[in-house]
Amino acid sequence: MALMTAAQYEESLRKMKFNLYLLGEKVANPVDHPVIRPSLNAVKMTYSLAHDPAHAELMTATSHLTGRKINRFTHLHQSADDLMKKVKMQRLLGQKTAACFQRCVGMDAINAVESVTFEMDQALGTEYHTRFNDFIRLVQDGDLTVDGAMTDPKGDRSLPPHKQADPDLFLRVAEKRADGIVVRGAKCHQTGALNSHWILVMPTISMGEADADYAVCFAVPADAAGITYIYGRQSCDTRKLEGGDIDTGNSTFGGHESLVIFEDVFVPWKDVFMCGEYRYSGALVERFAGYHRQSYGGCKVGVGDVLIGAAALAAEYNGAAKASHVKDKLIEMVHLNETLYACGIACSAAGSRTASGTYLIDMLLANVCKQNVTRFPYEIARLAEDIAGGLFVTMPSEKDLRHPEIGPKIEKYLGGTAGVPTEHRLRVLRLVENLTLGTAAVGYRTESMHGAGSPQAQRIMIARQGNIEGKKELAKKIAGIAGADTAPQ
Amino acid sequence: MALMTAAQYEESLRKMKFNLYLLGEKVANPVDHPVIRPSLNAVKMTYSLAHDPAHAELMTATSHLTGRKINRFTHLHQSADDLMKKVKMQRLLGQKTAACFQRCVGMDAINAVESVTFEMDQALGTEYHTRFNDFIRLVQDGDLTVDGAMTDPKGDRSLPPHKQADPDLFLRVAEKRADGIVVRGAKCHQTGALNSHWILVMPTISMGEADADYAVCFAVPADAAGITYIYGRQSCDTRKLEGGDIDTGNSTFGGHESLVIFEDVFVPWKDVFMCGEYRYSGALVERFAGYHRQSYGGCKVGVGDVLIGAAALAAEYNGAAKASHVKDKLIEMVHLNETLYACGIACSAAGSRTASGTYLIDMLLANVCKQNVTRFPYEIARLAEDIAGGLFVTMPSEKDLRHPEIGPKIEKYLGGTAGVPTEHRLRVLRLVENLTLGTAAVGYRTESMHGAGSPQAQRIMIARQGNIEGKKELAKKIAGIAGADTAPQ
Amino acid sequence: MALMTAAQYEESLRKMKFNLYLLGEKVANPVDHPVIRPSLNAVKMTYSLAHDPAHAELMTATSHLTGRKINRFTHLHQSADDLMKKVKMQRLLGQKTAACFQRCVGMDAINAVESVTFEMDQALGTEYHTRFNDFIRLVQDGDLTVDGAMTDPKGDRSLPPHKQADPDLFLRVAEKRADGIVVRGAKCHQTGALNSHWILVMPTISMGEADADYAVCFAVPADAAGITYIYGRQSCDTRKLEGGDIDTGNSTFGGHESLVIFEDVFVPWKDVFMCGEYRYSGALVERFAGYHRQSYGGCKVGVGDVLIGAAALAAEYNGAAKASHVKDKLIEMVHLNETLYACGIACSAAGSRTASGTYLIDMLLANVCKQNVTRFPYEIARLAEDIAGGLFVTMPSEKDLRHPEIGPKIEKYLGGTAGVPTEHRLRVLRLVENLTLGTAAVGYRTESMHGAGSPQAQRIMIARQGNIEGKKELAKKIAGIAGADTAPQ
Amino acid sequence: MALMTAAQYEESLRKMKFNLYLLGEKVANPVDHPVIRPSLNAVKMTYSLAHDPAHAELMTATSHLTGRKINRFTHLHQSADDLMKKVKMQRLLGQKTAACFQRCVGMDAINAVESVTFEMDQALGTEYHTRFNDFIRLVQDGDLTVDGAMTDPKGDRSLPPHKQADPDLFLRVAEKRADGIVVRGAKCHQTGALNSHWILVMPTISMGEADADYAVCFAVPADAAGITYIYGRQSCDTRKLEGGDIDTGNSTFGGHESLVIFEDVFVPWKDVFMCGEYRYSGALVERFAGYHRQSYGGCKVGVGDVLIGAAALAAEYNGAAKASHVKDKLIEMVHLNETLYACGIACSAAGSRTASGTYLIDMLLANVCKQNVTRFPYEIARLAEDIAGGLFVTMPSEKDLRHPEIGPKIEKYLGGTAGVPTEHRLRVLRLVENLTLGTAAVGYRTESMHGAGSPQAQRIMIARQGNIEGKKELAKKIAGIAGADTAPQ
Repeated sequence: MALMTAAQYEESLRKMKFNLYLLGEKVANPVDHPVIRPSLNAVKMTYSLAHDPAHAELMTATSHLTGRKINRFTHLHQSADDLMKKVKMQRLLGQKTAACFQRCVGMDAINAVESVTFEMDQALGTEYHTRFNDFIRLVQDGDLTVDGAMTDPKGDRSLPPHKQADPDLFLRVAEKRADGIVVRGAKCHQTGALNSHWILVMPTISMGEADADYAVCFAVPADAAGITYIYGRQSCDTRKLEGGDIDTGNSTFGGHESLVIFEDVFVPWKDVFMCGEYRYSGALVERFAGYHRQSYGGCKVGVGDVLIGAAALAAEYNGAAKASHVKDKLIEMVHLNETLYACGIACSAAGSRTASGTYLIDMLLANVCKQNVTRFPYEIARLAEDIAGGLFVTMPSEKDLRHPEIGPKIEKYLGGTAGVPTEHRLRVLRLVENLTLGTAAVGYRTESMHGAGSPQAQRIMIARQGNIEGKKELAKKIAGIAGADTAPQ
Repeated sequence: MALMTAAQYEESLRKMKFNLYLLGEKVANPVDHPVIRPSLNAVKMTYSLAHDPAHAELMTATSHLTGRKINRFTHLHQSADDLMKKVKMQRLLGQKTAACFQRCVGMDAINAVESVTFEMDQALGTEYHTRFNDFIRLVQDGDLTVDGAMTDPKGDRSLPPHKQADPDLFLRVAEKRADGIVVRGAKCHQTGALNSHWILVMPTISMGEADADYAVCFAVPADAAGITYIYGRQSCDTRKLEGGDIDTGNSTFGGHESLVIFEDVFVPWKDVFMCGEYRYSGALVERFAGYHRQSYGGCKVGVGDVLIGAAALAAEYNGAAKASHVKDKLIEMVHLNETLYACGIACSAAGSRTASGTYLIDMLLANVCKQNVTRFPYEIARLAEDIAGGLFVTMPSEKDLRHPEIGPKIEKYLGGTAGVPTEHRLRVLRLVENLTLGTAAVGYRTESMHGAGSPQAQRIMIARQGNIEGKKELAKKIAGIAGADTAPQ
Repeated sequence: MALMTAAQYEESLRKMKFNLYLLGEKVANPVDHPVIRPSLNAVKMTYSLAHDPAHAELMTATSHLTGRKINRFTHLHQSADDLMKKVKMQRLLGQKTAACFQRCVGMDAINAVESVTFEMDQALGTEYHTRFNDFIRLVQDGDLTVDGAMTDPKGDRSLPPHKQADPDLFLRVAEKRADGIVVRGAKCHQTGALNSHWILVMPTISMGEADADYAVCFAVPADAAGITYIYGRQSCDTRKLEGGDIDTGNSTFGGHESLVIFEDVFVPWKDVFMCGEYRYSGALVERFAGYHRQSYGGCKVGVGDVLIGAAALAAEYNGAAKASHVKDKLIEMVHLNETLYACGIACSAAGSRTASGTYLIDMLLANVCKQNVTRFPYEIARLAEDIAGGLFVTMPSEKDLRHPEIGPKIEKYLGGTAGVPTEHRLRVLRLVENLTLGTAAVGYRTESMHGAGSPQAQRIMIARQGNIEGKKELAKKIAGIAGADTAPQ
Repeated sequence: MALMTAAQYEESLRKMKFNLYLLGEKVANPVDHPVIRPSLNAVKMTYSLAHDPAHAELMTATSHLTGRKINRFTHLHQSADDLMKKVKMQRLLGQKTAACFQRCVGMDAINAVESVTFEMDQALGTEYHTRFNDFIRLVQDGDLTVDGAMTDPKGDRSLPPHKQADPDLFLRVAEKRADGIVVRGAKCHQTGALNSHWILVMPTISMGEADADYAVCFAVPADAAGITYIYGRQSCDTRKLEGGDIDTGNSTFGGHESLVIFEDVFVPWKDVFMCGEYRYSGALVERFAGYHRQSYGGCKVGVGDVLIGAAALAAEYNGAAKASHVKDKLIEMVHLNETLYACGIACSAAGSRTASGTYLIDMLLANVCKQNVTRFPYEIARLAEDIAGGLFVTMPSEKDLRHPEIGPKIEKYLGGTAGVPTEHRLRVLRLVENLTLGTAAVGYRTESMHGAGSPQAQRIMIARQGNIEGKKELAKKIAGIAGADTAPQ
């Protein structure tokens, strides 16, 4: 099949049999559910753009396994250039959807699992990498969307998995059988899980021997028996149920998150890629997190481009585009957004080859990238709110605008600069609302904070990678301090 | 009546006949409408706390006109101490409601109009101040809530009122009659208008002679003939229609904004306080804005207290309360919040007496106060999102929690530290959502940005009040630069 | 004497017999030493302004002990208004000197010791407060300058005084005699010590029983036998030795710091105000620090005024005064500077009476004030460097300007806007250098960071005063969380 | 010669006959002048490291003209990889010198002039590029240091060159002769000019036809007849005259700036690379500025590494290394420093080929890089001052430490953690002073602000390169706004 069309992708999802709950009700047909649909549309964009010759260089790659043209989301990065193209692809998709397009998490997961399983096989004589390559072929040839599932509920954060009051608060191997394993537990904050064909489950922290049962990595069809999805609420989610296409701000695209519960799900051995090798859980977590922290230097930048454009448009419609403070705020937004992009590009350009041949980002710079992502989108959003003016949180609903009696009053009083239809002004202000307070703010702000690890997780990595000891030596040399001090560290 | 009870206030509002539209429908009974009700509850708190002896010193004052005990919201500040008590009262109410309690705008409006009308009468021989004192007696004796209405739609912001394509884009005197005036136009972003008994309309900018018809200030019953209200949407507003009390985050209190349209509304002369005296429009705008910029150093601080508490509670429920980075972030939140409070207190303590006897805040410090309010709540909110963890945007709905089959799974997997009911954890996370992305975020973030004037408005005032020329002289003296330079300014 | 004249003050200092070292040499006459002289001039300003009727309200007060008119620097604050006037006086002196005028530390020390000794006498039946009042009378009647000495060398910061390798690393009572005590140790960072008549020594931290010998407070003449001063270097200090008056930036005023070593100094009992009462050392430290953190909301604001003026002047001389970005940066500088002032005023206005009658600032707001002082002057300095342009670090020396051959070339090429003498431009740029990199930067930047306690000290106090538990209760109420959770704190 | 040794470089400089003034005196031998010497040492490091095999990959390159191994400072970048290596080399040298090593400005100048002269020759049929290649061969073969000279005095900044009161305020062609041109004017802020063999002069702004005489680019020996140097003062410069090696903080390395005056200097045609082609002055300025803005993402990062190390060392010596707030501040310093590096790497990796074959950085990202450099070093310095503690601005001089009587007292009282010699502690604190307030602060702070153009210059470029119009189109598409608005831009 090589590359699925968007239509084929939608069709393939219709065949999935998810056990899904949303707002207290079981959902039989997620594909057409108005709350979920925009998130499907965002993933579809990863398929349709791959058929656009203008974007082929970014959207597609050549499989190192089969030599076939594949969607880049299923690719294992073979060079620093591949890593840069990944970031550029993500910025493009952020620009096209102004939302989380969800497919990155699987791409980042397969790249992390691939190199770690290679190293496991080399060191331990296991056959995880071989199995994993079969899985990759399946994904590449089928152009599948994979949910990379890492975050466990964690219960009491001060305790390791095996000391939790409830043993299921980290996902674990409940039973090992001749033909496979049975797993139990849950994964939180699963981005785009209901738009995925497979789930690739990974452990969520570095583990010790007592946690060996929790050191498990495997793939499973997303609609396998025993899996339950509970859809997460997003700010303004039910506006999508109201009809109309203004008040949502972005009526076409969105993201979603869900809680995924595994109740004694069976996984055949062929799909198991780690089972008890706890010493490798830390490396797997770090690499996945590293790739995913790089990703944010692409996708959030693309969304930022749309928000900058929306703010500029709002200023124009308000008649304020020429004010020097407005221009300066737009420059600041661009500056911050491009700083994020620079970090995404830099950790890619400084990437290096792992033992398996797959390229890994520079870990220090990838963590620096994400740390900035926990800050700058908030400031960009604040500036957008400043430029937009207060109307974006006080203006009437689309239904008011369409009302025969009230509508004309709104037309009269909420028009902006001459020549701009009032509806255009309201539309762009709703987009600002969507990105700063509404459903997309979940992705642009809170996900920027916590996705791929909360800020403190990056700081720990920066401390570890920052080579403070080496820097002390540089300072000693300049300061003329010879010989070792005996000061305790 | 002196002080109304909360019940009497509610009863008084039931008698109002508002012409109101919300989500495209006419609303007959705003008092019991679930979307509006929380905003009423917030205003009610200004009445009920006034009867609480523990808060009497802040919540009440003695009328300088009648010597009677009155609600401080109807008081004309007679000292710097009154100005400080105002700020403390606002912080208290912010703490109790975690929302905009709406009554400040009227308090700030009556204080501004009182001193300006006094000066007009002194200079012009008019009788506006006499009339206005009658209005104040009515408000104080009736313990009324007043909507201070300033912001016009403005159309093309680069043009003055009389040059707009549509002459109604600023509210204006359409007709002068023997018994009064007829006004036409609209006021945007009207906070709490539907919980008010009267509207006190003021001009929105400094005006020139050609704009004399727009230099108009008057009071009118909030349900006067010819006034139409269109209710503004807020993020997550319809969650209040879902039933339940978790997903709203704050199920009791809220704020509201509406667009208020005046279509040939008649105002008798006794309620007109400016009519054509355009030279005084600037002073009126500056004083109202000054008082209202002071207000934000109280109310937003109180809401900030709740958000800090919610973040601390979320950390505790997550089992992360002892992490040094969490403690440090809470300290930073307190530090920023108290800096805002310091600005509110300082502009009050440095206040001075106007000609009428009413005290005015220090204008430079009040603008500095508000400028900080356009920044720090955003950072406090960002830190709250950081501390809360990602669950507050990915967790299931209350209906899922109550679902017989799904509920127990949520209980199992989303529990936090041992001993804390899962529901408590979800409740506090929904409160964080409410304040950072939901209905209260409209008040805590966007209103902090644009209420009482957008950031640039404060910067213009800071430039005007900052005495840069005097500072140059200080520098010249220190640098040993004698004599005047002939450099052009 | 009531109020000394500036000349009398200088004369009184000439009589002091300091044992002083500076740049490796013993200094016989500090008063006329060119490196020290500017710091004397700054203290002199506190005397001369007190005789200026225009500033009498701020610069003087009425003694609560004698009813006589005294210099405010010797006053015990008797009201919140006194606290506010203190801050205003400090801003004034900062504006007049653009430097640290050094006398605050003594004022803050006497206010702290006064209320704490009162409470000691009440609780313990001691007579420290009686003794201290005699000392205060001496200071007030003689219009003396007092050095408040708190910071010990501290050695290994992780150890309490009695566990240090060298017992003298905190100042201590080495011997108790019938007629007095003998003390040994040192005090670091002593601001203005060589311009003082007396030193008031206080303990530097909260202490336990084993540290009782270190819990000592006393006054001693600044030139008492056994005291050695070692003068601290400041950036660009030796420019004052070069002659000329341009390159120093501020040729008249400055500050100084020194290391003060006490080698078996005798103190008669009448001048001992704490000796072993370790339980009161913490309160004394907190109150002194609190007053001194308030001080920075005055003095640094005054220096900031001069720096803002210098930047504005530099822009004017550069011909860039009308650029919108320059104007906006000046507004930002004013905004930040006034935020500091607001904090200084607020912690004063919210001050309260202690048991002795002396007024204490609001401790939370005073710590918030100082915390902002550790940040904003750095940003104000950064903006000043931005506005000034690079010339202030690349321009030739005054000697080059005065050189017959080279001088005219400098005149030709470094002139700014037409009509401004080149020398004026160079003078104002040297002032910018002085305040951002030179001797005054020590006071404006580094002292803002560490004076009155380093940033972390304020954060600890903010945590302690911030009432996080109360804020949690507010959040619980809003979130509908009833009953106590059993979660461990 | 290919690569000079450091000794050969020093020898070559001894042969230069500079007409130099410093502190009002003519300097016959700059090489051995203690104020200048450290700057020579810093440039020497660019020669000595090129002979170190460990650094050969970064320090050297292969000439595209001759195929010979050359110092990278004389190289024309032939690939994006070359651009990245440039940044890495600069970081390395910053680490080794903790100062400005001065040679970048020439490297950035030759790369800019090379591609622009190529395009001039292509378009205009001139022979500038041919001439320039001869100059490049000379530089590469001789391993020469070149001063790239751009910034004119500019006089009144609101006027173009030809409208200045004095026609020499921008450097200009005073006479065209058969054998060459005669130039007059000055260049300010000339980094490392006195350590250079040649000066490459470029115009400083985009010019119009009336300014054609000012559109001039040429090379000239640095000691050519008619050139006068006036050495710029730096903070703490004269400490280098005191003897000793502690108080300077960095006794080996430094930078320098001077004012360079051209009084009728003759330049033969072979060394003239632009003469009147004003249309190309803008491109030349932009490219040079672009390369130089990239440079700061390398050199300042290396200096930052030393400052981070110094702060970490100071914390260790103070006994505070384990405090969580100290660790967190070090992480923040690393984070900010690496963000700068990421920008330097990113604008290199995204570089592209110009018509001549030389690679140009991505202009948007290079400007974003420099804009961050105008901010983060200030914050890194602030954090360093925080961690270091106040002693670095109050401690005694080296002469006091060496004093037989006073020295032991200092040893006793200013020792830090057990086992660390007091002198080590003082040394590292002086290094912190050097980098935040002293001579190196001129390079690390003020040069970061103004070098390669002041902040506003970058903002103008970011506005121009940020494609706001394209972003508006993205927003319109998402918001469902079809068709062109007629709103005026």
